[in-house]
Amino acid sequence: MMADITPVLERADANLPNSLERLFDLIRIKSISTDPAFKAECRKAAEWLAAELAALGFEASVRDTPGHPMVVAHHGAEKATAPHLLFYGHYDVQPVDPLNLWEAPPFEPSIKEVEPGRKIITGRGTSDDKGQLMTFVEAVRAYKETRGALPCRITILFEGEEESGSPSLKPFLEANAAELKADYALVCDTGMWDRETPAISAGLRGLVGEEIIVTAADRDLHSGLFGGAAANPIHILTDILAGLHDETGRVTLDGFHEGVEETPAEIKRTWETLGRTAEKFLGEVGLSIPSGEKGRSLLELTWARPTAEVNGIIGGYTGEGFKTVIAAQASAKVSFRLVGKQDPLKVRESFRAYARSKIPADCSVEFHPHGASPAIHLPYDSALLTTAKIALSKEWPKPAVVIGMGGSIPVVGDFQTMLGMESLLVGFGLADDRIHSPNEKYELQSFHKGIRSWIRILDALAA
Amino acid sequence: MMADITPVLERADANLPNSLERLFDLIRIKSISTDPAFKAECRKAAEWLAAELAALGFEASVRDTPGHPMVVAHHGAEKATAPHLLFYGHYDVQPVDPLNLWEAPPFEPSIKEVEPGRKIITGRGTSDDKGQLMTFVEAVRAYKETRGALPCRITILFEGEEESGSPSLKPFLEANAAELKADYALVCDTGMWDRETPAISAGLRGLVGEEIIVTAADRDLHSGLFGGAAANPIHILTDILAGLHDETGRVTLDGFHEGVEETPAEIKRTWETLGRTAEKFLGEVGLSIPSGEKGRSLLELTWARPTAEVNGIIGGYTGEGFKTVIAAQASAKVSFRLVGKQDPLKVRESFRAYARSKIPADCSVEFHPHGASPAIHLPYDSALLTTAKIALSKEWPKPAVVIGMGGSIPVVGDFQTMLGMESLLVGFGLADDRIHSPNEKYELQSFHKGIRSWIRILDALAA
Repeated sequence: MMADITPVLERADANLPNSLERLFDLIRIKSISTDPAFKAECRKAAEWLAAELAALGFEASVRDTPGHPMVVAHHGAEKATAPHLLFYGHYDVQPVDPLNLWEAPPFEPSIKEVEPGRKIITGRGTSDDKGQLMTFVEAVRAYKETRGALPCRITILFEGEEESGSPSLKPFLEANAAELKADYALVCDTGMWDRETPAISAGLRGLVGEEIIVTAADRDLHSGLFGGAAANPIHILTDILAGLHDETGRVTLDGFHEGVEETPAEIKRTWETLGRTAEKFLGEVGLSIPSGEKGRSLLELTWARPTAEVNGIIGGYTGEGFKTVIAAQASAKVSFRLVGKQDPLKVRESFRAYARSKIPADCSVEFHPHGASPAIHLPYDSALLTTAKIALSKEWPKPAVVIGMGGSIPVVGDFQTMLGMESLLVGFGLADDRIHSPNEKYELQSFHKGIRSWIRILDALAA
Repeated sequence: MMADITPVLERADANLPNSLERLFDLIRIKSISTDPAFKAECRKAAEWLAAELAALGFEASVRDTPGHPMVVAHHGAEKATAPHLLFYGHYDVQPVDPLNLWEAPPFEPSIKEVEPGRKIITGRGTSDDKGQLMTFVEAVRAYKETRGALPCRITILFEGEEESGSPSLKPFLEANAAELKADYALVCDTGMWDRETPAISAGLRGLVGEEIIVTAADRDLHSGLFGGAAANPIHILTDILAGLHDETGRVTLDGFHEGVEETPAEIKRTWETLGRTAEKFLGEVGLSIPSGEKGRSLLELTWARPTAEVNGIIGGYTGEGFKTVIAAQASAKVSFRLVGKQDPLKVRESFRAYARSKIPADCSVEFHPHGASPAIHLPYDSALLTTAKIALSKEWPKPAVVIGMGGSIPVVGDFQTMLGMESLLVGFGLADDRIHSPNEKYELQSFHKGIRSWIRILDALAA
């Protein structure tokens, strides 16, 4: 029989003020991985984490990669029979532009009471993913401080390139497979169903990122002199992008829907009981009408259907005022969310072939890949998932639900294919956390009960 | 009988080194009118010009407007019977981005020998329009220094907002109509036919500038969470822009072609003799295939056909790397070149109605106007034009030709409608001057023979 975890939970409660101080220290480090200007800050975050883990008794190290470093740490279990778990999180964060929309500086975290009894932690990375990964570190701390030992053998892997396509992840997993292989992986980069209901994510969409650069003339041209005769790369690019969807919102690329499967009616019925309507979900961000494919429910659109999305576009004169120029170049960043068995590389090739077919003979196009990962579907009825579901349901007002996810966590696929590990996806973010946007926040309750949730999950998995 | 102008021409030749020094001083002033950061520089350019003109004996003043100031200067004629001419030029210049493409700093002019016997003046505004307007000032100087008088009564109007839609021009002309009304206007903001052939422009396309801003959600969204369900303003915008042309390159807006007239066969035949082919014209900028409407000659496309051109577009993440964001907003700057009797305001309204029709009910669109002017067609056989043609033909290796123009010089229309003045459009720019682009230049020959050309034109008009 396992020891009672009440003292561990109480320790976590007592630690909370100091846990927050530590989280704040981590948030203050501007670890924006996609922008080379913040390279040193990324390393600083890795070093800060390794030092924290070492102080908790882990054998911890900062491991160089061609990009930002990984943090790897190991700790043994109280009993040799306990399972070995690999915990994954990422210490890098998204860029903060447009900075002028932030109500408080993104790297100066603070606690704000937004309504009586509800406090939030503000700052870039609070929810994605520093606040989340620290729930696990603090759960471990509560165990160590209470019992001097951990209930499971734990390996920790913190990545610093999750927000920039994880270029070093696969090679690192490959080179260190023996060291990183565990019984299960725990991934903390997902959300709750709502404020009262914890969630375990069993399906994730894949992702293909692609940058396209169209070049026409060898210089910017005056639209008076050349307009009507010279190719305009913005016209070519907008034509390519506008052609990605038909009038029903369906992606038009050749072979794109190969491997896309219809969601079983039974799963769709379960989703309906969750009560997430387009009005409620989109209403929170000032919208009301689902865009995208016609005739699909909101949860189908965001969990089970593939998309093509333009994430950024730039070309020509974009400053104040007006300039009658025909640009030499225009570019866009495009991403595809994948489901079922869609092949990321085939999708990329299909996009490139389509775009090339739209380029006039005297113009040119260049592509830059930014990550490619297939969709992931975890078994809805595994022992891992069932155990975690029960543990989570003890902590929160409502029982845990098993859901799909619109986002992509490529590492889950890599753990499966490269290390043969099933992943448990548990996280405490909320839909209104504004991750990737100005004014990102994490609920204080997510942080506090998140720590307690991991204590319960570790205890349950050890049994 | 008029006095011989040989001494005046010789004086201009002797002055050349000092004329260049003065031009360089003017180019060093960063008078970018479209960017509020350069407001003080615009005023400085106006003050510099007024001081130069005052030193030449003009009654010169800098005149405030709600935007950048005007320069107005008056000088009497040797004989009361001589015509009164209004000379127009603009001292403002285009922005210089992308700065990294300039081979020399844009505001540090220099003379460069590009091939034996051919020198160019480098820098922003050398060709558009500081170098051009200084040809006239230096022609006047040569007269004054030789004869102590001018052959015609001259009023000078220098504008500082030509590159940003001339918002103050019409009100200024209206308020100062009596002071500015002359017998003819001389406008120096156009080009030569080729290095040896001067040109007089008899047709100019009109221009409508419009900025469109599409807003979807009230914040940037994560494309994993929201992709497939939330409206993406870049998709809406690219769809609007891509729909501006049909597959034949024809603009699709309702009523857009109202007032567009077919060019008479006789004019088209004259154009054919000029020998400007798509291969030659586009070849100079790295292109070869005329884009735009199918089945039209290059000169028709650039002189006689209306266009819709996207001059700039921006939305979402455009920095280094990748960010899976759905932007809250996307915007573009669009311009329409007009011909014949197309109504600029109707074109603007048609574009807005079309764009609005593409905006989903939960999204919004905003428009900002940036100038509107109709096309101008001057009589091919007026006395003014014929006189100038003879004078120009004396200065250059080949006789002057009368041509159309793809660009827009709204002031010509305003002179016609508001002051009842015919304009003579003579300039010495070349197609490869890279106006509005990095590495703008003006041929030293354009500057030198430009000065001499104005001496000859003033002499001919005085007779």
